Amino acid sequence: MSLTVMKFGGSSVGTPERMKRVAERIIEKKQAGDRVVVVVSAMGDTTDDLIDQSKKLNPNPPAREMDMLLTTGEQISVALLSMAIHGLGHKAVSFTGWQAGILTEAVHGKAKINDIRPERIHSALDEGSIVIVAGFQGMTDEGEITTLGRGGSDTTAVALAAAIDADVCEIYTDVDGVYSTDPRVVKCARKLDEISYDEMLELAHLGAAVLHPRAVEYAKHYDVKLVVRSSFTHNEGTSVKEEAIMEQGIAVRGIAFDKNVARISIIGVEDVPGVLAGVFGALANNGIDVDIIVQSGVQDGKADFSFTLSLDDREKALEVIEGIRGQVPYREVSSEDNLVKISIVGAGMVSNPGVAAKMFSTISSLGVSIKMVSTSEIKVSCVIQAEPLHDVVRALHTAYGLDTAEQAFVGGPKDRR
Amino acid sequence: MSLTVMKFGGSSVGTPERMKRVAERIIEKKQAGDRVVVVVSAMGDTTDDLIDQSKKLNPNPPAREMDMLLTTGEQISVALLSMAIHGLGHKAVSFTGWQAGILTEAVHGKAKINDIRPERIHSALDEGSIVIVAGFQGMTDEGEITTLGRGGSDTTAVALAAAIDADVCEIYTDVDGVYSTDPRVVKCARKLDEISYDEMLELAHLGAAVLHPRAVEYAKHYDVKLVVRSSFTHNEGTSVKEEAIMEQGIAVRGIAFDKNVARISIIGVEDVPGVLAGVFGALANNGIDVDIIVQSGVQDGKADFSFTLSLDDREKALEVIEGIRGQVPYREVSSEDNLVKISIVGAGMVSNPGVAAKMFSTISSLGVSIKMVSTSEIKVSCVIQAEPLHDVVRALHTAYGLDTAEQAFVGGPKDRR
Repeated sequence: MSLTVMKFGGSSVGTPERMKRVAERIIEKKQAGDRVVVVVSAMGDTTDDLIDQSKKLNPNPPAREMDMLLTTGEQISVALLSMAIHGLGHKAVSFTGWQAGILTEAVHGKAKINDIRPERIHSALDEGSIVIVAGFQGMTDEGEITTLGRGGSDTTAVALAAAIDADVCEIYTDVDGVYSTDPRVVKCARKLDEISYDEMLELAHLGAAVLHPRAVEYAKHYDVKLVVRSSFTHNEGTSVKEEAIMEQGIAVRGIAFDKNVARISIIGVEDVPGVLAGVFGALANNGIDVDIIVQSGVQDGKADFSFTLSLDDREKALEVIEGIRGQVPYREVSSEDNLVKISIVGAGMVSNPGVAAKMFSTISSLGVSIKMVSTSEIKVSCVIQAEPLHDVVRALHTAYGLDTAEQAFVGGPKDRR
Repeated sequence: MSLTVMKFGGSSVGTPERMKRVAERIIEKKQAGDRVVVVVSAMGDTTDDLIDQSKKLNPNPPAREMDMLLTTGEQISVALLSMAIHGLGHKAVSFTGWQAGILTEAVHGKAKINDIRPERIHSALDEGSIVIVAGFQGMTDEGEITTLGRGGSDTTAVALAAAIDADVCEIYTDVDGVYSTDPRVVKCARKLDEISYDEMLELAHLGAAVLHPRAVEYAKHYDVKLVVRSSFTHNEGTSVKEEAIMEQGIAVRGIAFDKNVARISIIGVEDVPGVLAGVFGALANNGIDVDIIVQSGVQDGKADFSFTLSLDDREKALEVIEGIRGQVPYREVSSEDNLVKISIVGAGMVSNPGVAAKMFSTISSLGVSIKMVSTSEIKVSCVIQAEPLHDVVRALHTAYGLDTAEQAFVGGPKDRR
């Protein structure tokens, strides 16, 4: 008898009809002989509605009280889902995060899980119940209610799967798996049967929003087998695991892109030790994440460097840089938006020379210039102008042999534009 | 420095504006130098909305899951109220029932409080915070979430007041106190300054719905001084306590009535021991409460008796009585609706002979016949036809000297009809 964790997101349970369908889906799994633990998010817009209500009373509410407020969303979901399962004649028991034994650090709004004590889950499973756990939430050792922050329900599911030694953790979403790139951009994008944790991490960080990076990191760390699949179909989905099989001759697993990119350049910086630490330390202290950093050669003891960051953080970053002019003298600062970052991701890259070169030449052949480059063992990223993004993604998808034969035949090259 | 428990019902916090007004009201109390613990119910229609959602998934949901669902209503209230207080620049901390240490028996939907462990409340008060506790909910020793059933938030407030030895428990409602009778029926009804627990219990049971009987019983048992007052005005309200002062020459404190009354008569019952136990035992086993029971004389070894019960229970009661015909032989059963029960309540009755006689004569003088009578130390109830109810209440109110002089002068007898 295998033990499965099934995680359903908020849109999968957004209406009574969907909630019932999810209940049926869970019962199918149970009837197939599995022991089942379900993790569920708040229904549809519940969380946003609660946030709206809070803003009317306090535009800047304490994080502790926000956690008290928002955790009700998942509690409502688990209670209703349990009722739906009972309504279909099966035993179920719902648990809040604290009831499920999910202990977190004492941080509100984005707590990390410290420990899981799944005694009550095991007892309920032993009694033959389907166990339904509220995602996104936990409790501190002092009995304070916490939330895990963004992607929290994915993390709950993976952490629970690790704690109860589940055979698989299935993440149900509104897509039927992880794709080689965004199917809205490339019609012949292929659904991947398998992907490694590291590849998934790169894709997740790059905006393929089916799985939260924290959950993937957790899965990698505890070696939890993940499957991403659709709550609306019975298609196989995508397995995420340590070693994912690569098709013969294919070095790139997927192509991700990020439209939310700005670049800041600082020109004529005094080239003394600690300059970079001064700039990026100040940005980090202000909660600003930077992505690609490029320093160009030093001339007359002055250096130029550029970095990319989220477009949303640009104004704040410029203020911070203006503020440190006293400590880190520089000649001028400029910024640029209307940029995108395109990345090719694949564990097979390491052993395939020329993968990066093919990326550069493909982009160049479209007459597009590359503004910044960054590489890792399993990823190459290029920053380019935003306009040709879709053309570049399509060209790369074809160049790396990722187009599905079927779709390529049906659509033909013209249609793919 | 005194310690006050303030309880606000759902309609007092039903909108952001009302929630803010409640927050201001609490802060006033705090600024007057009190230490303040607040108990709050779910906002406005929240509970009904949650029940509606559940019915769509399961018309008969398990009580445990219903408790999981409904307790979110109060959790939302306490979080938002705490945010509102923070927004006005004061420290507040919200607690769920289990965080506040409210331990109940292991019954869902209508648990009784077994114990309160208010350590966290005391710590928060010691830190100078206003403490806000979710009403209506608690936790079993096994960590199951429970609700206290109807009137639960009143009970939470009184039980907390007892546990933390508060100086007073203020129940804020949408009326400004307890009245001598329903002011919608009798314009010159007077607000009572004081009322005893026992009188309040009789009035509460009889439908003067400002305070739940369980909360009054709890207050009486633990000698908690209660004040019922308006959340919208600063009027004094009504004190509920052990010994309430009676005005000179007034034996009756208030007049209550209940429109939800049916009578069932069982005719020609075999007069053997255990007959009454058989009938009322069967009704009790089916969850049917009976109120007034009258047995008329025995003739030829057969007795007739009648009892009143809630109109809503009539059909079910008739079925039960039909079902026990085998064990308890009787000739016929009949039922009657369109009845009301009027009660005069007052601790001064005991020492004032003729109080009941005045009730009977006042009712008779209106040409209304009395169908059943029941008395206790501090109450006389009469069942009459429904139609003349308001006239009878007004006549009794005048007869017992309860009309306010002011109102009686302004309105005049005609207007009082």
